[in-house]
Amino acid sequence: MYAPSDDVARLTFFGLHALQHRGQEAAGIAVSDCNRVRLQKGTGLVTAAFTEEKLAPMRGSFSIGHTRYSTTGSSVARNAQPFLVETRHGPLAVSHNGNLTNAGELRNDLLQRGIGLASSSDSEVMTMMLAGAEGASWEARIGSAMASWEGAFSLTVLTRNNVYAVRDRWGYRPLSVGQLPGGGHAAASETGALHTIGCRAIREVQPGEIVALGHPALRVIQAVPAADELARCVFEHVYFSRPDSFWDGRSVHAVRQRLGRELAREAPVVADLVVAVPDSGVPAAIGYSRESGIEFNDGFIKNRYIGRTFIEPTQSLRRQGVALKFNVLAENLRGRRTIVIDDSIVRGTTAGPLVKMLRDGGAVEVHVRITCPPIRHPCFMGVDMGTHEELIAYRMSVEEIRAHIGANSLSFLSLEGMMRGVGRERGYCHACFSGEYQFEPVPSAKKAEFEAAIV
Amino acid sequence: MYAPSDDVARLTFFGLHALQHRGQEAAGIAVSDCNRVRLQKGTGLVTAAFTEEKLAPMRGSFSIGHTRYSTTGSSVARNAQPFLVETRHGPLAVSHNGNLTNAGELRNDLLQRGIGLASSSDSEVMTMMLAGAEGASWEARIGSAMASWEGAFSLTVLTRNNVYAVRDRWGYRPLSVGQLPGGGHAAASETGALHTIGCRAIREVQPGEIVALGHPALRVIQAVPAADELARCVFEHVYFSRPDSFWDGRSVHAVRQRLGRELAREAPVVADLVVAVPDSGVPAAIGYSRESGIEFNDGFIKNRYIGRTFIEPTQSLRRQGVALKFNVLAENLRGRRTIVIDDSIVRGTTAGPLVKMLRDGGAVEVHVRITCPPIRHPCFMGVDMGTHEELIAYRMSVEEIRAHIGANSLSFLSLEGMMRGVGRERGYCHACFSGEYQFEPVPSAKKAEFEAAIV
Amino acid sequence: MYAPSDDVARLTFFGLHALQHRGQEAAGIAVSDCNRVRLQKGTGLVTAAFTEEKLAPMRGSFSIGHTRYSTTGSSVARNAQPFLVETRHGPLAVSHNGNLTNAGELRNDLLQRGIGLASSSDSEVMTMMLAGAEGASWEARIGSAMASWEGAFSLTVLTRNNVYAVRDRWGYRPLSVGQLPGGGHAAASETGALHTIGCRAIREVQPGEIVALGHPALRVIQAVPAADELARCVFEHVYFSRPDSFWDGRSVHAVRQRLGRELAREAPVVADLVVAVPDSGVPAAIGYSRESGIEFNDGFIKNRYIGRTFIEPTQSLRRQGVALKFNVLAENLRGRRTIVIDDSIVRGTTAGPLVKMLRDGGAVEVHVRITCPPIRHPCFMGVDMGTHEELIAYRMSVEEIRAHIGANSLSFLSLEGMMRGVGRERGYCHACFSGEYQFEPVPSAKKAEFEAAIV
Amino acid sequence: MYAPSDDVARLTFFGLHALQHRGQEAAGIAVSDCNRVRLQKGTGLVTAAFTEEKLAPMRGSFSIGHTRYSTTGSSVARNAQPFLVETRHGPLAVSHNGNLTNAGELRNDLLQRGIGLASSSDSEVMTMMLAGAEGASWEARIGSAMASWEGAFSLTVLTRNNVYAVRDRWGYRPLSVGQLPGGGHAAASETGALHTIGCRAIREVQPGEIVALGHPALRVIQAVPAADELARCVFEHVYFSRPDSFWDGRSVHAVRQRLGRELAREAPVVADLVVAVPDSGVPAAIGYSRESGIEFNDGFIKNRYIGRTFIEPTQSLRRQGVALKFNVLAENLRGRRTIVIDDSIVRGTTAGPLVKMLRDGGAVEVHVRITCPPIRHPCFMGVDMGTHEELIAYRMSVEEIRAHIGANSLSFLSLEGMMRGVGRERGYCHACFSGEYQFEPVPSAKKAEFEAAIV
Repeated sequence: MYAPSDDVARLTFFGLHALQHRGQEAAGIAVSDCNRVRLQKGTGLVTAAFTEEKLAPMRGSFSIGHTRYSTTGSSVARNAQPFLVETRHGPLAVSHNGNLTNAGELRNDLLQRGIGLASSSDSEVMTMMLAGAEGASWEARIGSAMASWEGAFSLTVLTRNNVYAVRDRWGYRPLSVGQLPGGGHAAASETGALHTIGCRAIREVQPGEIVALGHPALRVIQAVPAADELARCVFEHVYFSRPDSFWDGRSVHAVRQRLGRELAREAPVVADLVVAVPDSGVPAAIGYSRESGIEFNDGFIKNRYIGRTFIEPTQSLRRQGVALKFNVLAENLRGRRTIVIDDSIVRGTTAGPLVKMLRDGGAVEVHVRITCPPIRHPCFMGVDMGTHEELIAYRMSVEEIRAHIGANSLSFLSLEGMMRGVGRERGYCHACFSGEYQFEPVPSAKKAEFEAAIV
Repeated sequence: MYAPSDDVARLTFFGLHALQHRGQEAAGIAVSDCNRVRLQKGTGLVTAAFTEEKLAPMRGSFSIGHTRYSTTGSSVARNAQPFLVETRHGPLAVSHNGNLTNAGELRNDLLQRGIGLASSSDSEVMTMMLAGAEGASWEARIGSAMASWEGAFSLTVLTRNNVYAVRDRWGYRPLSVGQLPGGGHAAASETGALHTIGCRAIREVQPGEIVALGHPALRVIQAVPAADELARCVFEHVYFSRPDSFWDGRSVHAVRQRLGRELAREAPVVADLVVAVPDSGVPAAIGYSRESGIEFNDGFIKNRYIGRTFIEPTQSLRRQGVALKFNVLAENLRGRRTIVIDDSIVRGTTAGPLVKMLRDGGAVEVHVRITCPPIRHPCFMGVDMGTHEELIAYRMSVEEIRAHIGANSLSFLSLEGMMRGVGRERGYCHACFSGEYQFEPVPSAKKAEFEAAIV
Repeated sequence: MYAPSDDVARLTFFGLHALQHRGQEAAGIAVSDCNRVRLQKGTGLVTAAFTEEKLAPMRGSFSIGHTRYSTTGSSVARNAQPFLVETRHGPLAVSHNGNLTNAGELRNDLLQRGIGLASSSDSEVMTMMLAGAEGASWEARIGSAMASWEGAFSLTVLTRNNVYAVRDRWGYRPLSVGQLPGGGHAAASETGALHTIGCRAIREVQPGEIVALGHPALRVIQAVPAADELARCVFEHVYFSRPDSFWDGRSVHAVRQRLGRELAREAPVVADLVVAVPDSGVPAAIGYSRESGIEFNDGFIKNRYIGRTFIEPTQSLRRQGVALKFNVLAENLRGRRTIVIDDSIVRGTTAGPLVKMLRDGGAVEVHVRITCPPIRHPCFMGVDMGTHEELIAYRMSVEEIRAHIGANSLSFLSLEGMMRGVGRERGYCHACFSGEYQFEPVPSAKKAEFEAAIV
Repeated sequence: MYAPSDDVARLTFFGLHALQHRGQEAAGIAVSDCNRVRLQKGTGLVTAAFTEEKLAPMRGSFSIGHTRYSTTGSSVARNAQPFLVETRHGPLAVSHNGNLTNAGELRNDLLQRGIGLASSSDSEVMTMMLAGAEGASWEARIGSAMASWEGAFSLTVLTRNNVYAVRDRWGYRPLSVGQLPGGGHAAASETGALHTIGCRAIREVQPGEIVALGHPALRVIQAVPAADELARCVFEHVYFSRPDSFWDGRSVHAVRQRLGRELAREAPVVADLVVAVPDSGVPAAIGYSRESGIEFNDGFIKNRYIGRTFIEPTQSLRRQGVALKFNVLAENLRGRRTIVIDDSIVRGTTAGPLVKMLRDGGAVEVHVRITCPPIRHPCFMGVDMGTHEELIAYRMSVEEIRAHIGANSLSFLSLEGMMRGVGRERGYCHACFSGEYQFEPVPSAKKAEFEAAIV
């Protein structure tokens, strides 16, 4: 972000804090004082990675940050972002959300040019490509590099005197910019974070755009044409985004309530109570309740102190019912036919225990309703859903899953129902449900090879 | 707790994790292997205070733990619990929830007996009194000490071969015991924690009881007679306890929904929407919505990654609207007359900004409804509400508070309404609302004197 | 120490740093601002235990500190000193160097009086006895407690307005006081530490004295009469003290040079070179060289970065010759008959490898000379030499030890020779050599029992 | 190093520990298991940077390490070594001791080629050049890169299946290889470290050589011809190296004793005592004593627990004589005309206080003798001596320095005397004394520019 202050790193910190749900593995901030760029990174939550002592020397008016999501098994520290390098055109820092589908190829090109790469991250590949890109200005160089990137990338780029927000032409991952109350602008993956830091006049970075935040006004460049067929990630609506974020002109919270309504229409059931798996299932459960007329109430209580614990229940304790994350509200459940709304089933390890908890709490029937279709295909665009083998809906039919989790009934929302809830027929990627990838999926064997050498 | 296993400290850890909301300052566990007692403490959350490395050597079948709530300004490390001492009768560890009202006097007695005290905590006073108590058994000694303790105390006491759960005769603080699925028993301030670790057959420790967990069955001793007039803390129902806990035979969640219903009856208002201040206001908001027929929906989204951040927004950032804890859902609020339900107003610093956020989010009217009466008096029984001067309702009338927070209307639930919601007319302490203390309040000047010497 | 400044804790820190060799396990400082006493402790070296952040709030003019030596297996954190308690006469903090021989009995008295003890340390016993002692002033109370303490104790005692330096009537452990350059006084186990912080006019605290540092001048009280037969620890001269310290009017460095001379007279050998085991053997080696006329030179080089490493060579690496602490200077040793001077042989584990290193470095003969007699008896006065079984000279004759370590010859200085080097015939404890204890040794079984209960 | 074991990282750790004096800022180890290369780094001493937990997963038979010396003000973490990258030829890690004089130019070449550089270190420049070098094998590629490097570089290079030790053609910095007792070979800056890990059959890596450690035997390649005029750093003999190291076929300890003898011949003085500034002055002081016949004894005692303390005496404490590093042995000094031997005077801040301490300790005359000439010129080859302005001998004459430090006399060894002590007339760099640089010194302004961009 850019602000006419020399403490913009602090504002970046609060923005990252509001994006914590998008990555808990590591966090980093880079800041430019128009002369030097400073970088600090740390592992764990934003609040663990940064202390006042680390933040205090990070003076400057231009800043970018990052929270890192799942690791691919390689070194957390070395893959933490932003990446910062000096280039022939001055300092350059890059934060990347997404996944390039042609990263392996591009990585190989760089290696063949005699460049050494210090991480296994495609974000470093992008950074090095920007360092070597041709063009008279950073805008030109970013635009030139964008042309060769395939896949999902919402980037923030920091140079000595500018911050750029950059989005791929398919629009996979969200990215918005807003005006800071004290002047200047900020960019963030989600509008929820922009609201947290007080932004107004929020607009989405459109597919293919480069938006320069560095000057009194925004400067918008359509660097590459938007794809004919956009491919926004529908899973952002279903699960990933904060409910208070907007994207594609829609409130995520409102979409989720509509998903609940659609589900009530597609998969009605005679019951006494609708409960949600907190927190992401709540809006849909309210929607389901409204549509069906069945009472909504709390069924689970979630421990608010989740954090990272390195101490896990032993297998024997688990069998005895030690349950860290949720308790049930038996007095709400007792004797009632219960509908439970969850956002999705990925690996299928939590649904079974939750159904059992509801029954132990006294529910006489348990009907599971999921606000999206079965996830049968891995995501190559930045959401870690695991491999085919890890996806329960790849291995089992809906009826088999129902039996596996012990529910009286199980329904997933249809693809059409989900898109009705979103309010669009097209312009979204739903490959994880449909298998319709915009790009040839990366063969994982080949990917592993690229990452084999350094750890 | 006691379990026929030598890894009972791990179970205690999970129990403490479920009680994290009762104290975030420090955590500790003591464990006995029937020979030696081991103790580990640490500052911060339970997950920060304990690592696998610290937990692994804590072998034994008898264990107690503690999470420490607010500090009185003195050393966190030295006041952390449990307190562990060797006595003439072997090792003794004590965890205490509550506050003795005659602690100053008892402390002075100990000092006059020539005893040195290493902390400013009344829990150390209790520990030292137990060390010196007369009696042929620990049960007898605990009973004898109980007779001289005035005020709130729910204790767990660990000796070489026993764990005792002990509760004052007025029943101020909750305390329950349950049967562990693998055998043995556990005690905890809240049944929610007992459920988390899989307990069954849960019963409350009754006022004046000592319950020994150490043997295959529970052994219950009525050490002192229960007070004629019990004094359970009503604020546990209103705010402090987990919603999934039971006490006094009532579900806290159900009580909160009834508080919402009472509030709807006592303080109705023509409006379009009921929202809650998450998380504690949610059950009451659902209750209010049911009773009033006004739609319930989410109005605020709370950042789930609260934790402790040592980095705070500067005053200037706050003025610009940087808001770490909550965002609003403008699409739910826009153009709507909104009722917002909160559990209580203590210092009155958060209500104003929340009202402003709702208005900024588009609410055309904001009606604040509080599920308890105005808090006008400090608590001397273990809840840190601050001094008289810090309590906004001591300094201002309801109308003044309304103006101060900028609401269209403000109503507190009446004392009678609150007790109707609880479902009892008597047997509760409501001194913070009514000023009717069971004990002479401790003059704070005198208290400070006792605590002056060591830091 | 006392100084007319409010930053006396910092000076205490530097004094502890100069006493680091006396204990590396934990460090602590207590400071009084004439109202409250603050305490900070930490594990490891002084520099690890204290940061600027921890030191900064420790304002005050009166301060004591401690570095903790070996543990007896119990919790480092709980046994760290100083001990700080509030008493009926105000705050009291105690640092103790030494060992009470009647600690078990005294501990039992306290327990029987109904006092709970939070550690297994005899220093806590002393603190609690002071808290309960009779007398109109701290001087009187300390004097009264001293009368019941048997064994070694050099204490510093902090009260609200005073610091006292206290020494047992036998004078086991050193303790001196000096005048601070900016006013005020300091006490320390060794004069080397007093010099480090700039002290002048240094005098020893005489056996049985209490010296009050708190007023412009020293106030000296002969609280108990000095023992007829003093029992200073001769091992302080031989090994434990810094070479730049003075005690009993003698320079430790000069005593060590005389021990070397005595050794040269008692155990001469035809050789080409005298080397020392650094660092403590150096002065004696210079003395041996002077007396014998045989050239002194460096034979070993010691790694200056010892610190604590938690990474140890595996057994297999050790066998391959991985040697972390010392290397030899082969060019000095090659072809030469070498005398190596070491201060003592305790467990006998290092002498053998050192002899082998000298031979591998080219020494044609290796003659080991030790500046004290064989250590055949454990110390109960504050030096951790281990049990009888661990002392090699208890299990083996000198000739057996020689064979065991592979030396051509091995000689220990005689008791008489050692005392000649010290320059006294009487007034020293040499029980570890002679077995002549001033007190009945504490049966270790009984001691273990007292320490059994809490860990 | 290479060893037929998969725990060679542990051996590297011990080797680094023995080289700790060469850099205390950061430490790192890279290890190859013939498939992947793992890297761990940390700040501070080797013992702080590595824990058993960090070391345990570092399995493999090929390893290199590094301890980082002074910083140029930029980020410690980002400049820590080894540098590890993936290249088109597989993984590559580099540890570098020394300084390239044409680093700025080479850095610029890389930037112009479109490469981004993540640090300000010339070692990253070398790593990237190796990544892009032409040649059929790593030997060929290293040889080709060496041809363009000017200045001081002793490198260790790790690839998937090899470790190479590489030395510049001028031989500035030492580098030796030895045979490990269990098989395999190790390379290290100093033979002292090779001895520490048990090496035998030690040889120097000759100027211009690449030595491959990876196979049962060493493979030696003369990659570039040795310079006609070698330029070994004479300051390694004077100060930098451990006394137990050998280089250029000379024992450093023996050279230092000869420097003392030369000094006694060049700068005799009538006196009673020779003392050393410990530890580096000791061998020369012994040499001076032998040559002059004046008695050698300890004059200073050095605190053995130096480590890093972040707590510093205030200016006022310093004035009062708080002296952390050294105490004097007054009983050796009193009334004596004292010669004090130090290795060098760089900034001239410590000599004055040491002279004062000797006088305060009773020395009636203090004659300072330095085992090298005045240092008047900065080093561009890897020793941080500061800028011209910081060098006292650049600003002052010898007589002025004498007056400044308050000595009765001051003599530096002549350049010729120093070289006689070394035993060579030519083949050494003595630019810091003579100003005769082999390369054009890097203009510091230009250097700063290259380092300006990222921090």
